[in-house]
Amino acid sequence: MKTILRLSILVFVAGLLAMTAAKPTRVIFFGDSITQAGVNPGGYIDRLKKTMPADQYELIGAGIGGNKIYDLFLRMDEDVLAKQPDVVVIWVGVNDVWHKATSGTGTDPDKFIKFYNAVVKKLQAANIKVVLCTPAAIGEKTDMTNQQDGDLNQYSKFIRDIAQTQNLPLVDLRKAFLDYDLKNNPENKDRGVLTTDRVHLNDAGNQFVADQMQKVLMVSK
Amino acid sequence: MKTILRLSILVFVAGLLAMTAAKPTRVIFFGDSITQAGVNPGGYIDRLKKTMPADQYELIGAGIGGNKIYDLFLRMDEDVLAKQPDVVVIWVGVNDVWHKATSGTGTDPDKFIKFYNAVVKKLQAANIKVVLCTPAAIGEKTDMTNQQDGDLNQYSKFIRDIAQTQNLPLVDLRKAFLDYDLKNNPENKDRGVLTTDRVHLNDAGNQFVADQMQKVLMVSK
Amino acid sequence: MKTILRLSILVFVAGLLAMTAAKPTRVIFFGDSITQAGVNPGGYIDRLKKTMPADQYELIGAGIGGNKIYDLFLRMDEDVLAKQPDVVVIWVGVNDVWHKATSGTGTDPDKFIKFYNAVVKKLQAANIKVVLCTPAAIGEKTDMTNQQDGDLNQYSKFIRDIAQTQNLPLVDLRKAFLDYDLKNNPENKDRGVLTTDRVHLNDAGNQFVADQMQKVLMVSK
Amino acid sequence: MKTILRLSILVFVAGLLAMTAAKPTRVIFFGDSITQAGVNPGGYIDRLKKTMPADQYELIGAGIGGNKIYDLFLRMDEDVLAKQPDVVVIWVGVNDVWHKATSGTGTDPDKFIKFYNAVVKKLQAANIKVVLCTPAAIGEKTDMTNQQDGDLNQYSKFIRDIAQTQNLPLVDLRKAFLDYDLKNNPENKDRGVLTTDRVHLNDAGNQFVADQMQKVLMVSK
Repeated sequence: MKTILRLSILVFVAGLLAMTAAKPTRVIFFGDSITQAGVNPGGYIDRLKKTMPADQYELIGAGIGGNKIYDLFLRMDEDVLAKQPDVVVIWVGVNDVWHKATSGTGTDPDKFIKFYNAVVKKLQAANIKVVLCTPAAIGEKTDMTNQQDGDLNQYSKFIRDIAQTQNLPLVDLRKAFLDYDLKNNPENKDRGVLTTDRVHLNDAGNQFVADQMQKVLMVSK
Repeated sequence: MKTILRLSILVFVAGLLAMTAAKPTRVIFFGDSITQAGVNPGGYIDRLKKTMPADQYELIGAGIGGNKIYDLFLRMDEDVLAKQPDVVVIWVGVNDVWHKATSGTGTDPDKFIKFYNAVVKKLQAANIKVVLCTPAAIGEKTDMTNQQDGDLNQYSKFIRDIAQTQNLPLVDLRKAFLDYDLKNNPENKDRGVLTTDRVHLNDAGNQFVADQMQKVLMVSK
Repeated sequence: MKTILRLSILVFVAGLLAMTAAKPTRVIFFGDSITQAGVNPGGYIDRLKKTMPADQYELIGAGIGGNKIYDLFLRMDEDVLAKQPDVVVIWVGVNDVWHKATSGTGTDPDKFIKFYNAVVKKLQAANIKVVLCTPAAIGEKTDMTNQQDGDLNQYSKFIRDIAQTQNLPLVDLRKAFLDYDLKNNPENKDRGVLTTDRVHLNDAGNQFVADQMQKVLMVSK
Repeated sequence: MKTILRLSILVFVAGLLAMTAAKPTRVIFFGDSITQAGVNPGGYIDRLKKTMPADQYELIGAGIGGNKIYDLFLRMDEDVLAKQPDVVVIWVGVNDVWHKATSGTGTDPDKFIKFYNAVVKKLQAANIKVVLCTPAAIGEKTDMTNQQDGDLNQYSKFIRDIAQTQNLPLVDLRKAFLDYDLKNNPENKDRGVLTTDRVHLNDAGNQFVADQMQKVLMVSK
């Protein structure tokens, strides 16, 4: 499976390179408040702009606070397709889980999968390369005692399954955050290592996400 | 406003009559578990089949338990558009409100409106006449002490606004149920008058809904 | 019933007067964030201090943000009984309803009644006069479309039932707020008439609550 | 720490033995629906009755479906203290977590701890030995993707902390179930290994719980 994944990334990147001859590859980061903040100075998209060659990559943020997968679906024509990107990075899932507890309007597991697939399908129909991400964290405790850990693990698994089934590049932020916190969060704090408030990125978090993203976006360089 | 509504129903019905010359008008009832049960013997659709002339109306149930407005959206191609109906009666909303409390996956007010409008728009784009219904009840107490009364009133108002703005026929079941219960539920019971369990229809409820539906579907006869 | 209520208030007030001969009647306002803010300059308790004679009434705030009925139960020994009040005004219920939606930790209806009765009983066992209040509002819209209207009506009814059954003075803020808004909120706004944010009191709200409280606390003057 | 725990169990058991000279040690199992079913034929209490000597142990079930920690608190006078037990086994927590999602009336973490401590304190004040249990499971998947895994882990940790701080015997069912499922649930099923429905015990589950309970209740035999 790892070999297949690597192969798929290579094919994917080869495609990117082919495209970059004439004009820069347009990449849209499509997500929630974390991505909305990503374009701010020091945000993960802002950091990527400084490390990925501007003549090869045009990076655009399309994040809106509170968005769940079906919000992405509802606004994708206007906010994504109309801008004719070459690549779309989908990073969503925290609110689909979190809103169950905070407003009673989270997303059912089966509907999450349906809308996620609908978004992917519609992007692919427009000849857009799709990169998936798992939701990173609602709480940084490493002993699986953050309230939403079970549900976040489940929704992350859904996304990994879609990536694997459809052979799509994946930035597995959930796994990356947990691995990082296992090493760097010995006090089992719920925030302050990669996040400011259990969810949104601090400086270290923005750099960490930028690194994870870049690895997949520019894998061969 | 009442005159406008009546006028719109007349225009609507005139359209129906024009269509019924060659073949029966195909009506699809699109909804949740209440509509799923509506095709059973004694159900409201079953009752309508006995009172609306079969040579003029073909009545089809398309209800699935637990459906919210975005479930209707996700399955409308297959379950509705593929069957090429002339009329679609949309009856949904109970689960959008109720699931907030029972599974944390209700529908945000603004998303409810967005998906509702998307369903209506897509039906109209296929030249289908659309009839709207408000969600009837989660509890039959008449003193506004049913847990979801405030929210059900709010979502019913959204649907009334859409009906009014777009000049669409409306079966205002929420109002009809409350009026009926105010007369027939002197003990302020939460079930047993029109419902078996606060939500699903008993015999009287199925007959009552059939009557309300027929009034709008066959208004001129 | 009204006669009985009035009689009970008279007996209650007679009791208060008897007590006030030697030292001022000590009144504790026992509640949530609304009462916590009530002691601030311009708050309802602060206003009452200016209108109720200080030689006859000592007014003490004991409100803590986020409190539900079982929080009052848990802290009543320390925060109320230890201060040996003559009268306790219990004003709670908003969070018991609201937290169902905002954190999944609201209070079951039957447990609300049990803890409410337990608080009343324990106060009475210490020879303390008890005044009950209904929760005023989560949203000021007057057409029963505030999300929690049904549930707030239900919990208010529980409190009215306890007041009636046990013949206790009642400040029916839920009813008073609705009556006031029906006259003074013609635009059906959800805030800004008596509240700043649908729940917490603005200046008009603090004055209005102070007036309602004083009517019951000093009924005969 | 393990030595201290073992020591505390020995002291505890020595106490039990001392008591059993004259009459059997009366043990009450205090809990929710799992314990309510425990007295049925084949239930875990029924099984314990067959394996623990009746002349030494009188085993009584006091479980009620849907109970959370504050339900135990509310009914402990009548259902536990009135029966003058020597030992009380507290097994609660599933509903405190689960009801957040299913009715919006789960228990806040800090209130869970407060009521839990209040129950323990009141039992100890009546000279009753207390045995604690962690909530076993809401779902048997072993990869931490059951929706409530994070929260159940957190509440189990609260109970372990209370057991450790107060030096109380602990039946760590959460840990025991996970260990068992890691060995016996290779397909990562959410039910069917120790439970029928993710929560309630099947035959294997009842036997497993009986074994775990007996180990602590009769540790020296």
